[in-house]
Amino acid sequence: MTRIDHVGIAVKSIQEAARVYAEGLGLPCTSIETVEAQGVRVGFIPIGESEIELLEPLSAESPVGRFLERRGEGIHHICITVDDIGAAMEQLKAQGLRLLSDTPQTGAGGALVAFVHPASANGVLLEITQKQ
Amino acid sequence: MTRIDHVGIAVKSIQEAARVYAEGLGLPCTSIETVEAQGVRVGFIPIGESEIELLEPLSAESPVGRFLERRGEGIHHICITVDDIGAAMEQLKAQGLRLLSDTPQTGAGGALVAFVHPASANGVLLEITQKQ
Repeated sequence: MTRIDHVGIAVKSIQEAARVYAEGLGLPCTSIETVEAQGVRVGFIPIGESEIELLEPLSAESPVGRFLERRGEGIHHICITVDDIGAAMEQLKAQGLRLLSDTPQTGAGGALVAFVHPASANGVLLEITQKQ
Repeated sequence: MTRIDHVGIAVKSIQEAARVYAEGLGLPCTSIETVEAQGVRVGFIPIGESEIELLEPLSAESPVGRFLERRGEGIHHICITVDDIGAAMEQLKAQGLRLLSDTPQTGAGGALVAFVHPASANGVLLEITQKQ
């Protein structure tokens, strides 16, 4: 079963951004995790079978820090679940799409993740993930 | 039950963009609808309880046409379902958030929709919808 796993939103402050969803829409941020490898703090807002992920950079030089510098706050990426990330990566490559890595990487919670380059996906940073 | 209703992606060509999802990820675009009032053609890609909506402008002067001119292809907005759009709009306004209209508008399929201005939602064009 494929679904939208999450939509990532680059923000300056998780605490400030979470107010819109919690107090405006009744969707609380239920946990915050620091992912040192990506230089980011992530605030998780469950919504149906998906999540909104608020991404706050740990430094200006991190990927999300550079995104904020270049584009300002806003939607950063969308992540879709797949059953078999290896097969999905092969299929994407077979269609001529450029991936950011040749093998799956380990993301938050031990999930396997890979990214399609925005140049191959209509300007969208498209993440795929296989949950354990 | 709140969920991500859809993620809207601004594209130059629905046909080209749909290939990534159909042939790369096995997610076909199942229907295309022209929404003259918004100056846009919309391609619907069902995914779990949500959809990816590919937005192709009918003209360069339409909102999506101007987005493409300014930002290029990419994620345009995110839409969240609410049970009662009137109550949700009041709640958002009570939190000091700026809405694009004072009353709900009618969107595709007769759904009621409203938008939070990106300046009030961390750079995100945030749509809410109440399904009939």
